[in-house]
Amino acid sequence: MSDAAEASVVSHPVVVSPLSSELWSLPEGVRLVEDGGISPGVTYPRGFVAAGVPAGLKESGRPDVGILAAEVEFRGGVTSAAVFTSNAFAAAPVVVSQRETQLSKMCAVVVNSGSANACTGVEGMVVARAMQAAGGEFLGVGPEHVGVASTGLIGTVPSVDHLRNGIATAAAQLARDGGQSFLSSIMTTDRFPKACALEVETVDGIVRLGGCAKGAGMIAPAMATMLCFVTTDAVVSPGVIRSLLRRVVGKTFNRASVDGQMSTNDCVFLLAGGASRVFLSPAGAAQLGAALRCLLLRLALMMVADGEGATKVVRLRVRGAASDEDARLVARAVADSSLVKTAMYGCDPNWGRILSATGAVLPGRSLPRVYLEIGGVRVAQDSRAVMLTRQAEANLTEVMARSEVDMLLHLGSGRSHEEVYFADLGHEYVAVNSEYST
Amino acid sequence: MSDAAEASVVSHPVVVSPLSSELWSLPEGVRLVEDGGISPGVTYPRGFVAAGVPAGLKESGRPDVGILAAEVEFRGGVTSAAVFTSNAFAAAPVVVSQRETQLSKMCAVVVNSGSANACTGVEGMVVARAMQAAGGEFLGVGPEHVGVASTGLIGTVPSVDHLRNGIATAAAQLARDGGQSFLSSIMTTDRFPKACALEVETVDGIVRLGGCAKGAGMIAPAMATMLCFVTTDAVVSPGVIRSLLRRVVGKTFNRASVDGQMSTNDCVFLLAGGASRVFLSPAGAAQLGAALRCLLLRLALMMVADGEGATKVVRLRVRGAASDEDARLVARAVADSSLVKTAMYGCDPNWGRILSATGAVLPGRSLPRVYLEIGGVRVAQDSRAVMLTRQAEANLTEVMARSEVDMLLHLGSGRSHEEVYFADLGHEYVAVNSEYST
Repeated sequence: MSDAAEASVVSHPVVVSPLSSELWSLPEGVRLVEDGGISPGVTYPRGFVAAGVPAGLKESGRPDVGILAAEVEFRGGVTSAAVFTSNAFAAAPVVVSQRETQLSKMCAVVVNSGSANACTGVEGMVVARAMQAAGGEFLGVGPEHVGVASTGLIGTVPSVDHLRNGIATAAAQLARDGGQSFLSSIMTTDRFPKACALEVETVDGIVRLGGCAKGAGMIAPAMATMLCFVTTDAVVSPGVIRSLLRRVVGKTFNRASVDGQMSTNDCVFLLAGGASRVFLSPAGAAQLGAALRCLLLRLALMMVADGEGATKVVRLRVRGAASDEDARLVARAVADSSLVKTAMYGCDPNWGRILSATGAVLPGRSLPRVYLEIGGVRVAQDSRAVMLTRQAEANLTEVMARSEVDMLLHLGSGRSHEEVYFADLGHEYVAVNSEYST
Repeated sequence: MSDAAEASVVSHPVVVSPLSSELWSLPEGVRLVEDGGISPGVTYPRGFVAAGVPAGLKESGRPDVGILAAEVEFRGGVTSAAVFTSNAFAAAPVVVSQRETQLSKMCAVVVNSGSANACTGVEGMVVARAMQAAGGEFLGVGPEHVGVASTGLIGTVPSVDHLRNGIATAAAQLARDGGQSFLSSIMTTDRFPKACALEVETVDGIVRLGGCAKGAGMIAPAMATMLCFVTTDAVVSPGVIRSLLRRVVGKTFNRASVDGQMSTNDCVFLLAGGASRVFLSPAGAAQLGAALRCLLLRLALMMVADGEGATKVVRLRVRGAASDEDARLVARAVADSSLVKTAMYGCDPNWGRILSATGAVLPGRSLPRVYLEIGGVRVAQDSRAVMLTRQAEANLTEVMARSEVDMLLHLGSGRSHEEVYFADLGHEYVAVNSEYST
């Protein structure tokens, strides 16, 4: 994913999620809500309104300012949480959201695309604060209850006038079916919209979860800007919502994107409006957590699948590692290897590259009992090649041609494990990322 | 660089080094020796013979077995040293060279391409030992004085019969001008031969250095097999030669290739035959060390320039880091970033991607005084964009169009520094690496 502005080559067709169910499944009691393949997204939960409008920040004239807010009657009771990039060059809106906002009581989020407002110094901070203030002003709430987020070209500051006008217009257009409109305002290089809505039958009653995201997971979040907004109409305490979000992000986005490498603008916001009037017990909160994990994993997999020019989503499960650190290192090394990624693009089950990437991050270690399975076909055993039967070869060819590939790498050294999702690397990636200009 | 066999798309034209002198210069008293653009390589120093022959390991019928040896009269006095990959799946020839060879007294090295003999278990060890034994037998020396090295497809074992026949034939063809022939036998996906010969005027007298290498530096040595052989006719003690080699490899190959990621087969051999009769004093040894650094840097830069499909070699100097570890992390993160590499391919001076990659590996740090220069043009200052004059923009466009780009990234946080060399990432890389099959 690029840090850059919207590409001319990109169109935003309304498509059904490109994901099959192989790498993703619904927990019990959770139902996926779509209408003709289109997800209502963040406005599926009751009590939320949203809008996205063109404000002139994108040259294309596409929507570039959006607002997501709790409906007026629920604003007082909203609980919320957010997680942010750890990048040393965190963008101005990230700094404002993180340090100058009541993170547990945000009733709205204001976003813009077309300009990342990152690496913009004091001027950028002034604009991010003005963006927050305008959100508060046009929604009639204190600015400290408004989160802000930006995406687009690093080093540019969005025009305050454009932002204010956009926020005023969007505030006037807020609607209960505004989820898709809001989503359109955060998209940049995305090839398809990423949204998900779930109905969750908890022990305490039915609640709803909705979410949308922008970003592509090629090497994300190496520098991909990843923005994600999630809503629920459950009644949850700020402490519970915060711990749920942190835990689930660690198991979804960080795994989809190979952890530790975050862009200047990454953030995930979660707002609970309480409109369902369903107060969650600890058991109910655990069910909401499982559904949240499911929702974020779906959005994360959509980002990987959208990894500029990706033709495949690969799941790698590392097992039998001597330590959690080993498992993490190996998962990351394989997922980050350009040689593995290009082999995947070429439908080449190149186990040699996978073992070599593994061995490189475990220097001097003895690993005589490694095995590797690709799509259930064992291609390496005892750290060497397996002689494949003709049937196994045929199966392997069939597996490698799919758009989702499942790999299991067992290190034979212990009990630690890790799981990552990554995209292949093909011509389209080079084309998209070499054609931008700063 | 691929771990795979020779590509059908690759030809081996005799070309003058594609390097300009911008990133590379000769120390005082050192002269580059070439004849019509062709380097005599490892047989430039006196007292060495070499040969490369086709033995049937490569399907193409190209040379695939080579021998480099001291001439008979100098074999008793040879001193030597070698460094090897730290990959946990080190190939069988690496294990044999490292553990079953007198590393300080190697008078010959036997190599093959067409098969890496890596991840090949006990069978691979048997073959690597047979290769060493055949070398000793046909050269008339103890096998413990013969180093072995292999490159090619991981997971395949070279045929012992082919190896023996090839070694016998090569031993019979050893010649004082055999450097190029030897080099041809180690090439796989290389687009051009990589050799260098230097005449070194030391305080003790004139000595000669010759070297050749195979490998391409795209993300090397992430999984690129990198083989390198260096000879000198100086008289040097085993202790001096070992410490010189270790220090210089750390400053050249490891920097060209972003350290810590080594393939299954990487190795560098250095043989000092003593034919010049020039005994090096500590001052002379230091001069030899400077020349060795120059030679290995030249070969390393050739590998980067050959980085499958590379159109550019980029030097990144990181300055002003708070610690050596910070400097190393940042250099590696930028050099490894697919987004930075594709921007370079697109001649895009995308400073935002460079800063974002930097910030990602220094989480939570405050870096308000970062500046970045590309080809001498300052594009970022105080961690934000510089408004460029039209002249500066024109200069930047001109700089980015070159085949060598020099970048200086100052972190404004301390005095530590690091330097790396990397290639861009273009369509050719994807083409070459997705077209192989295991």
